[in-house]
Amino acid sequence: MNYCSHCGAQVSLKIPAGDSLPRHVCDQCGTIHYQNPKVVVGALVEWEERILMCRRAIEPRYGFWTLPAGFMENNETCGGAALRETFEEAGARIALGPMFSFVDLPHISQIHIIYRARLLDLDFQPGEESLEASLMTEQEIPWSEIAFRSVDYTLKCFFDDRRRGQFDLHTTSLVIPVGSLAK
Amino acid sequence: MNYCSHCGAQVSLKIPAGDSLPRHVCDQCGTIHYQNPKVVVGALVEWEERILMCRRAIEPRYGFWTLPAGFMENNETCGGAALRETFEEAGARIALGPMFSFVDLPHISQIHIIYRARLLDLDFQPGEESLEASLMTEQEIPWSEIAFRSVDYTLKCFFDDRRRGQFDLHTTSLVIPVGSLAK
Repeated sequence: MNYCSHCGAQVSLKIPAGDSLPRHVCDQCGTIHYQNPKVVVGALVEWEERILMCRRAIEPRYGFWTLPAGFMENNETCGGAALRETFEEAGARIALGPMFSFVDLPHISQIHIIYRARLLDLDFQPGEESLEASLMTEQEIPWSEIAFRSVDYTLKCFFDDRRRGQFDLHTTSLVIPVGSLAK
Repeated sequence: MNYCSHCGAQVSLKIPAGDSLPRHVCDQCGTIHYQNPKVVVGALVEWEERILMCRRAIEPRYGFWTLPAGFMENNETCGGAALRETFEEAGARIALGPMFSFVDLPHISQIHIIYRARLLDLDFQPGEESLEASLMTEQEIPWSEIAFRSVDYTLKCFFDDRRRGQFDLHTTSLVIPVGSLAK
């Protein structure tokens, strides 16, 4: 951030009075520009034994597999974002279930939230941001080609829970491993 | 938003290619400025039969009672934000428990997340943003002077759960009631 989005003057990094962290503060109008984590929301969509997976048609992680998910928008609910993203990325209509995973990614200032959901019919197709949308069993999932660690975590929790017959909310923090690439 | 925070030129509201919503787009450098919901995180802190309540020393809702909570910062976890806010607003050290309530407020583009927690000692005092910090029983809580509806919801869920002896994650959406003030 270089300029004030309110008045267009330059901003400086400084700690405002009563605050404890440096913020971008406008040199002219004094507006403090806070930056906060973003919420990514998606759905783990079941159809009988299978899960709805999407292959990404966009960066990052082009060509890798993920659950339908994306950035939550202003003026929507978290569950509403899961419904919207599932329709946008897989053309799929779902009935939303409970929140299933909640993953902190502090190194990229994101929270990833995945809901369980049930696919309502088989009339789905990949949206613009997906190369493919496909229903897969646990064995069919390309485990070495999963786009994001939060998706890998969520899928593994789901299959473990399904085996033991009880679904819980799973929460974790995934920090960047030393010496490896951010995913 | 009037100006591009990257290059300082004017921005226009337009729907970018492949998008479905209007965004602030820079007329000069083309940067798209997305705006997303913010996450407010706090703690419902128990000490024996009592709950740690704070009376607000800042607007909005100056003088009203709330749970220690505030905006999640970049590069922290959601649980870390609950610990930090509880220390900032009530000077209190806590052991964090599970996520307890998750409240969508789409009309103000916020999510409020409250964790259960246990107070570690009685050496606490109001921080700069609090007039008072006090341990209260259910009967002592000033129910007509609660600052935010998400806090009222969370407290009521908590005392109901405590009575029945089982604590669950509570999720809801609180939209603005027609004809009343936003809280």
